[in-house]
Amino acid sequence: MRYSRYFLPTLKELPAEAEIASHKLMLRAGMIRKLGSGIYSYLPLGLRAIRKVETIIREEMNRAGAQEVLLPMVQPAELWQESGRWEKYGKELLRFKDRHNRDFCLGPTHEEVITDLVRREVRSYRDLPLNLYQIQTKFRDEIRPRFGLMRGREFIMKDAYSFDADERGAEKSYWQMYEAYSRIFTRCGLDFRAVEADTGTIGGSFSHEFMVLADVGEDTIVFCQDCDFAANIEKAEVKSSIMPSKESPKPREEVHTPGKHTVEEVTGFLGVSASRLVKTIIYLADGKPIAALVRGDHEINEVKLSHLLGCNELELAPEEVVKQQTGAEVGFAGPVGLQIPIVADLALKGMVNFITGANKTDYHYVNVNLSDFKVSQFADIRCITPQDPCPRCGGKLVFKKGIEVGHIFKLGTKYSQSLKATYLDAQGKERYIIMGCYGIGVGRTVAAAIEQNHDKNGIVFPYPIAPFQIYLLPVDVKNNLIAETAERLYKSLGTKWEVLYDDRDERPGVKFKDADLIGIPIRITLGKHLKENRVELKIRKTSEVILADLNELNEKIENIVKEIGG
Amino acid sequence: MRYSRYFLPTLKELPAEAEIASHKLMLRAGMIRKLGSGIYSYLPLGLRAIRKVETIIREEMNRAGAQEVLLPMVQPAELWQESGRWEKYGKELLRFKDRHNRDFCLGPTHEEVITDLVRREVRSYRDLPLNLYQIQTKFRDEIRPRFGLMRGREFIMKDAYSFDADERGAEKSYWQMYEAYSRIFTRCGLDFRAVEADTGTIGGSFSHEFMVLADVGEDTIVFCQDCDFAANIEKAEVKSSIMPSKESPKPREEVHTPGKHTVEEVTGFLGVSASRLVKTIIYLADGKPIAALVRGDHEINEVKLSHLLGCNELELAPEEVVKQQTGAEVGFAGPVGLQIPIVADLALKGMVNFITGANKTDYHYVNVNLSDFKVSQFADIRCITPQDPCPRCGGKLVFKKGIEVGHIFKLGTKYSQSLKATYLDAQGKERYIIMGCYGIGVGRTVAAAIEQNHDKNGIVFPYPIAPFQIYLLPVDVKNNLIAETAERLYKSLGTKWEVLYDDRDERPGVKFKDADLIGIPIRITLGKHLKENRVELKIRKTSEVILADLNELNEKIENIVKEIGG
Repeated sequence: MRYSRYFLPTLKELPAEAEIASHKLMLRAGMIRKLGSGIYSYLPLGLRAIRKVETIIREEMNRAGAQEVLLPMVQPAELWQESGRWEKYGKELLRFKDRHNRDFCLGPTHEEVITDLVRREVRSYRDLPLNLYQIQTKFRDEIRPRFGLMRGREFIMKDAYSFDADERGAEKSYWQMYEAYSRIFTRCGLDFRAVEADTGTIGGSFSHEFMVLADVGEDTIVFCQDCDFAANIEKAEVKSSIMPSKESPKPREEVHTPGKHTVEEVTGFLGVSASRLVKTIIYLADGKPIAALVRGDHEINEVKLSHLLGCNELELAPEEVVKQQTGAEVGFAGPVGLQIPIVADLALKGMVNFITGANKTDYHYVNVNLSDFKVSQFADIRCITPQDPCPRCGGKLVFKKGIEVGHIFKLGTKYSQSLKATYLDAQGKERYIIMGCYGIGVGRTVAAAIEQNHDKNGIVFPYPIAPFQIYLLPVDVKNNLIAETAERLYKSLGTKWEVLYDDRDERPGVKFKDADLIGIPIRITLGKHLKENRVELKIRKTSEVILADLNELNEKIENIVKEIGG
Repeated sequence: MRYSRYFLPTLKELPAEAEIASHKLMLRAGMIRKLGSGIYSYLPLGLRAIRKVETIIREEMNRAGAQEVLLPMVQPAELWQESGRWEKYGKELLRFKDRHNRDFCLGPTHEEVITDLVRREVRSYRDLPLNLYQIQTKFRDEIRPRFGLMRGREFIMKDAYSFDADERGAEKSYWQMYEAYSRIFTRCGLDFRAVEADTGTIGGSFSHEFMVLADVGEDTIVFCQDCDFAANIEKAEVKSSIMPSKESPKPREEVHTPGKHTVEEVTGFLGVSASRLVKTIIYLADGKPIAALVRGDHEINEVKLSHLLGCNELELAPEEVVKQQTGAEVGFAGPVGLQIPIVADLALKGMVNFITGANKTDYHYVNVNLSDFKVSQFADIRCITPQDPCPRCGGKLVFKKGIEVGHIFKLGTKYSQSLKATYLDAQGKERYIIMGCYGIGVGRTVAAAIEQNHDKNGIVFPYPIAPFQIYLLPVDVKNNLIAETAERLYKSLGTKWEVLYDDRDERPGVKFKDADLIGIPIRITLGKHLKENRVELKIRKTSEVILADLNELNEKIENIVKEIGG
């Protein structure tokens, strides 16, 4: 591709709308442009990177025995009403009416549509297993779209759905996808981890997320240094290690803690460590108030809590509810005397003589004990911490930030039951099909790759997903020798590699800057060495520069490609 | 692909929902399934055919210098308000609000979005010309979706937009697309015509449609046997050939024509030919009544009339308006005494002593003459007929039905003016960019190909867009020799061709029926001849059967491929 004819509007200035590196760089490198909040146009360079990822996905999905289909983006309400998600899905499901006043939505995911298709066509166990996938544009009306392609409203997703006759088959399908996803992200050149994950609104029995490690990641993942345990902290179970206190219970006392609301303020004021305090947090679970207790140095895990309660919606109680339930300002809640259900974290089990709010403004209790109030349920409702042992092997844990690029779910019969997708088994008995679903954010994978692979000068594309492999840069197109050699190389290299040929009549500085910004893996510079029949090869990733004779150019490029992971 | 593992649900029975052959066959061959009115899922076989067409389109668009982008399907109302189409587009534009109550629509076409993108990035004449295309899902909320992929609501379209600095450049871009489209449909193996077309709601100055010839086509096209004139009849101009009558005007007379409404009834009753009558048709043009006059044996061309009047909406006046304007029941309207503007077809210019309605129920006038009423305007407002000469060369015209699969428009500055897309010319002067737009219905192209290529047994895929090239059919998978040879051939042929391998344990009759239905170009049957090391090669298109020795199989296949247009 000739740069002079290519629609590649690079930007010198830093775009004000972008906060994170990948978003800034995708705008600056002319890969994407914003049309509206969370809605982007893919320019030619951006689309090429997207297509590279799509091709890898397609190859690995086909290799795993999945078959490509394409399902509609506009979906009738009836199917969502059948599955029960028309009401449950919330505002991310964009609903509208057509000209005949019938209800539809824009597909945020396709469990309903695919299950409907399969229930109409699959009759017998002989038609199973089946794994159908598509690469398609989805729409989720996110309340706060941000970070460019990282959290858009309209986005490209690969979604796959497996259909099996029995649990064993379903697990086999699941692990086939696990392997396929591992190959996909490996082939994309990404540093990632597969971690145990929560099943969220999709539902189902178990699940893994594929996380690209990057500091801007919105998820925290935890993994063990000693075994293969790896999980999203939303999901990571805490190994209960109750250390019964040797203290004897003392009588409870009310202490004046004027204006001390936070754990730090209260424990600082009383001169004790945070682990001596118990936080009392009031929630509304599907509108009903409950209290959750965790130790002062622990954090509540709302995902765990919400699963425990089996509620659709869990939110912090608003101020007026807290006041009504505790009779005090926010910051002084405690379990003693509370009239609502109380859920306590397992860590509380061994605690003696702890501190809580006194349900009275500006007062706390010291020497509270479990006998002072009634706990409805003890459970693991907190986030794992670096002080906790690995829940599998007791080993040491490491915490990292990750970007979720893939997510696989074993759904079980959630959708086949609600939509009545059944088959006849070998004995002629009707059974529910067992499902799995598997998603990859295609645009997000490109964004995550850039987040993980960039430097101050621009993008450093992993070779397998680079929009071009070679950036051919004649420093002066008015110099005949340079221009003619460049034209010749453009043609000959183009038979083997994808070449972006910077044929612009621009200053070398401008060209070098754009080349670094766009991040094509190999740059060939035609400059002063051309008199000796030599060109400069620069590896974007390592900044290494090699002088190559023109007649050994192909061989040198091939060696570099081997080295940088083609 | 092994049939036993392929999601290919063929149907024996004729689907009730389908009227035309392509729609029936796409359902029966398991290519598509309906999700809702005008909304289809593409199953694996259907998607493969779609992808074949997409690949040909992509190759030819790239070859013509166009660059692929991908624009959002969800578009903000503001852009459509800027172009003026938010109000004008009608109900086919599906409008909705997002969670923040902002107005959006689903893209039925992308002139606004692409013009917005280009106006932000193009500064100078050096950035032009530019041709950007995408292959994308569109939504048009058709009032009566029908014929499967032929007229759906959600459909896949290739749309391209060209941007030029001057008229000469714009015309060059237009003809490049004309050539690219011709190559695309030729490569798809279709019998098509490029015809002059009306510009419709897209607007612009000139336009061609690419029509696949087929009897079910919704359009009528007319072309000349002697020159290269070819047009949609909506567009085809009529060469004015006024033959002044030699009769002298006679005095007008009212005649009683009880219950005679139609041209046939009136002229039959009066014993004259239809060409002696003048039809008076009352329309509402943007709500205002007008009368249009054409000869009794001619048909009004509403597209021409609507352009002449320059109105947005032209509709037949409802009964009550006709009664109000003429004072008579429908069927007795005439120009004499009418108080609304009258537009007359050019053919009326030479007419003398003709028949019209008398604006009085059950009465007509005979011997009406042009002096009896006032014509506001004479113009070409009728459809061309087989009796008319070619408007270019006077030669003989041929009429055919066609399916519109492509449409190219020279838009001029319609969108660049309303959206203020300008560039600076070499003199630093700001000018409007000159645009063109170019569309191909991808799904419709597949449907049209099937409409044109099928027989009573099923689809006869043109080789270049066939989902597979070879259908490998062992008649009995329990026969060891047959089964082993089939497995071997599946592997070896698969390195060169796309093979659908019917490894099902089914009766030969079932397999032959499915093979014919699906319409893969070459069928290889492994049956009784295998003992002599021979297989049967059947060409789906010609039904020709060839016996081939296994060791000459590849060569024979290659010869067939050459013959049937690979």
